[in-house]
Amino acid sequence: MKLKAIAIASALAVAGTAWAASVRDEPIQPIQPAKVTNPALVELGKKLYFDPRLSRSGFISCNSCHNLSMGGSDNLKTSIGDKWQQGPINSPTVLNSSLAVAQFWDGRAADLKEQAGGPIANPGEMAFTHDLAVGTLRTIPGYVAEFKSVFGSADINIDKITQAIAAFEETLVTPNSPFDQWLKGDDKALNDRELAGYGLFKESGCVACHNGPAAGGTSFQKMGLFEPYKTNNPAEGRAGVTGKDEDRMNFKVPTLRNVELTYPYFHDGEAATLEQAVELMGRLQLGRKYSEQEISDIVAFLKTLTGDQPTFVMPILPPSSNATPKPNPWQ
Amino acid sequence: MKLKAIAIASALAVAGTAWAASVRDEPIQPIQPAKVTNPALVELGKKLYFDPRLSRSGFISCNSCHNLSMGGSDNLKTSIGDKWQQGPINSPTVLNSSLAVAQFWDGRAADLKEQAGGPIANPGEMAFTHDLAVGTLRTIPGYVAEFKSVFGSADINIDKITQAIAAFEETLVTPNSPFDQWLKGDDKALNDRELAGYGLFKESGCVACHNGPAAGGTSFQKMGLFEPYKTNNPAEGRAGVTGKDEDRMNFKVPTLRNVELTYPYFHDGEAATLEQAVELMGRLQLGRKYSEQEISDIVAFLKTLTGDQPTFVMPILPPSSNATPKPNPWQ
Ligand code: HEC
Ligand code: HEC
Ligand code: HEC
Ligand code: HEC
Ligand SMILES: [Ca+2]
Ligand SMILES: [Ca+2]
Repeated sequence: MKLKAIAIASALAVAGTAWAASVRDEPIQPIQPAKVTNPALVELGKKLYFDPRLSRSGFISCNSCHNLSMGGSDNLKTSIGDKWQQGPINSPTVLNSSLAVAQFWDGRAADLKEQAGGPIANPGEMAFTHDLAVGTLRTIPGYVAEFKSVFGSADINIDKITQAIAAFEETLVTPNSPFDQWLKGDDKALNDRELAGYGLFKESGCVACHNGPAAGGTSFQKMGLFEPYKTNNPAEGRAGVTGKDEDRMNFKVPTLRNVELTYPYFHDGEAATLEQAVELMGRLQLGRKYSEQEISDIVAFLKTLTGDQPTFVMPILPPSSNATPKPNPWQ
Repeated sequence: MKLKAIAIASALAVAGTAWAASVRDEPIQPIQPAKVTNPALVELGKKLYFDPRLSRSGFISCNSCHNLSMGGSDNLKTSIGDKWQQGPINSPTVLNSSLAVAQFWDGRAADLKEQAGGPIANPGEMAFTHDLAVGTLRTIPGYVAEFKSVFGSADINIDKITQAIAAFEETLVTPNSPFDQWLKGDDKALNDRELAGYGLFKESGCVACHNGPAAGGTSFQKMGLFEPYKTNNPAEGRAGVTGKDEDRMNFKVPTLRNVELTYPYFHDGEAATLEQAVELMGRLQLGRKYSEQEISDIVAFLKTLTGDQPTFVMPILPPSSNATPKPNPWQ
């Protein structure tokens, strides 16, 4: 991560000119910084995102599987859920996920708010129910007061909970990557290898799928176009949502923003390194066999997509009261 | 938590006069704010504290069981460890633990540095080995660079790791509680009930054990002096360290700082509420049966021991490299 370069770009941003659109006409556009319209809602959402009391065990929070210290995922092949259950699929990053056309690998949630209700009630993840989660928060005086001040009424319900979490997630964008600095006109932001890698990425057709500000997240695509993808993971992708056979193995194209941080790769987490992922993408999606040099150039380019990670003060959660149901992780 | 009061005290602190010692001669003294002499060492320690790669599974960090969003503990009866193992004992808070005479319920570690090596290699907690943890960090370029800049040499070993974690933990003090404001001369910092509770706490003899700046942590004491403590938990306390039969059920007196946040109570986590804990302490340690009013006054006083929680920016962890061993949580 080019921390120095990022610091300089931040200084420019303060000067108030750097957030203009790209000066180059490219299939990937710069990430815009978050515009926070309701900071109190975001602050509440941050607390909920970090609160393990939204899970049956009292141990697992959103941040357990989408760790904001680690690029917004858990860096495991598939996630660890309630009772150490082995999850079915790789945890995607929450960074920049607000930019995607839909949520989940198969797009089964339309947006972040709809998505956020899922894991709380998923028996393999937080294993709670919406009613129990709401009931728990209602017994926590600090939350009651905060919901009241944010929403104007003290009633807590799942709609407000997911709205707050989504508002926090919308702030989790990563502007200022070296690639974005280059897009905005700084010719020195990328070195020759990185530029060569980007050239290859464009010309060989990666941008057909990985495009837009998130370099992904704009469409669903078949995994395994030129050769079938071999995996033991039973996930069927988009077909599970549409019921159509032609959607089998269609997945939401993942964002390549911060891909340096979101190892391991693919929906099954079976590619351990970026080199493996790029080699496979070339072969399976484009019918092209890259040389080692080409792979290494593309990887160098992909690492320029690491942006400023969201920095914020760890939330302090309001304590439970005597009325709060006690978690029992082993029941 | 009296957030307003705390904010005012912080303002005083900035004015530079408020850190004087107590103006009252009491058995509990104010918590002093942390004096950071080596900020880079603290910053490295913070990263390590939050890094789940110090565990076999890649999922559990110090913060999993000593969650700094929740008063430095996990609010479970006993902790969840590697593979969802049920821990043997309640997780004590790390807040102000630098003030204690020794570490762990039975005091088997002399200080924070000695303590920090324990959980990494404990099969029921992080379930790693020191060699594997060190080996993992050595493959992470960001850590290699940071150890080099902090220690002057790039070599990473368990001694440096535990030194950095301990330096971070030393910053986890919680000054500025309403009780400390009162100790420093602000007569309005406590209301009548809180003062009555403190009066009872002193006169009935709680301060014989819960004394010093941490209101605890200064000695080992028998749990169950007037009546034996009934529990199914097999922990023997200090006897496990000294081998002496008279040390059976002797535990380090826990700090009462932030006790509002560190539920459930006692080494077995069997007291769910502060009211239960106080009732039991009165009966078992002092042979005294408090009225409901007395219990409620003492609890009101105990809640004035909640201080400013450590606030800091969430660390961003350096990414693994291709050489980093892959965690396999289910092996
Ligand atoms: C036990 C692990 C786990 C927990 C806890 C968890 N998630 Fe997830 N999350 C996942 C996995 C795995 C997926 C992918 C599931 C799929 O696509 O079928 C996912 C998907 C997502 C997505 C979609 C991202 C994308 O690009 O499609 C978002 C957003 C998200 N989670 C946010 C949250 C929030 C908010 C919470 C807490 C309320 C949460 N997660 C709790 C593991 C977890
Ligand atoms: C036809 C569409 C398409 C093309 C062309 C394509 N990709 Fe992908 N890419 C995808 C899809 C779909 C996935 C997710 C597959 C999965 O997880 O099973 C993906 C995943 C990835 C990943 C892993 C991301 C993660 O977080 O797991 C990387 C890296 C990647 N692509 C890079 C590239 C590169 C480099 C190229 C060009 C060589 C390329 N892609 C071409 C559709 C495409
Ligand atoms: C799986 C849960 C778990 C993990 C992970 C864990 N701890 Fe603990 N910690 C505990 C428990 C339980 C105890 C009490 C053990 C005892 O006293 O026998 C404890 C005790 C302590 C104490 C002593 C506090 C006191 O008042 O005596 C400190 C300090 C501490 N841990 C710091 C850490 C650090 C630093 C890490 C990471 C390197 C860590 N812990 C990881 C559960 C955990
Ligand atoms: C003779 C020593 C002694 C006296 C007197 C004493 N305590 Fe304790 N206190 C302890 C010990 C030892 C523990 C830990 C016991 C255990 O966990 O098994 C403890 C635990 C506690 C706890 C639970 C703390 C936690 O984090 O688990 C509270 C609250 C408490 N004491 C309050 C009081 C009050 C109030 C009084 C007076 C009524 C009192 N104590 C008197 C020794 C004492
Ligand atoms: Ca991944
Ligand atoms: Ca406790």
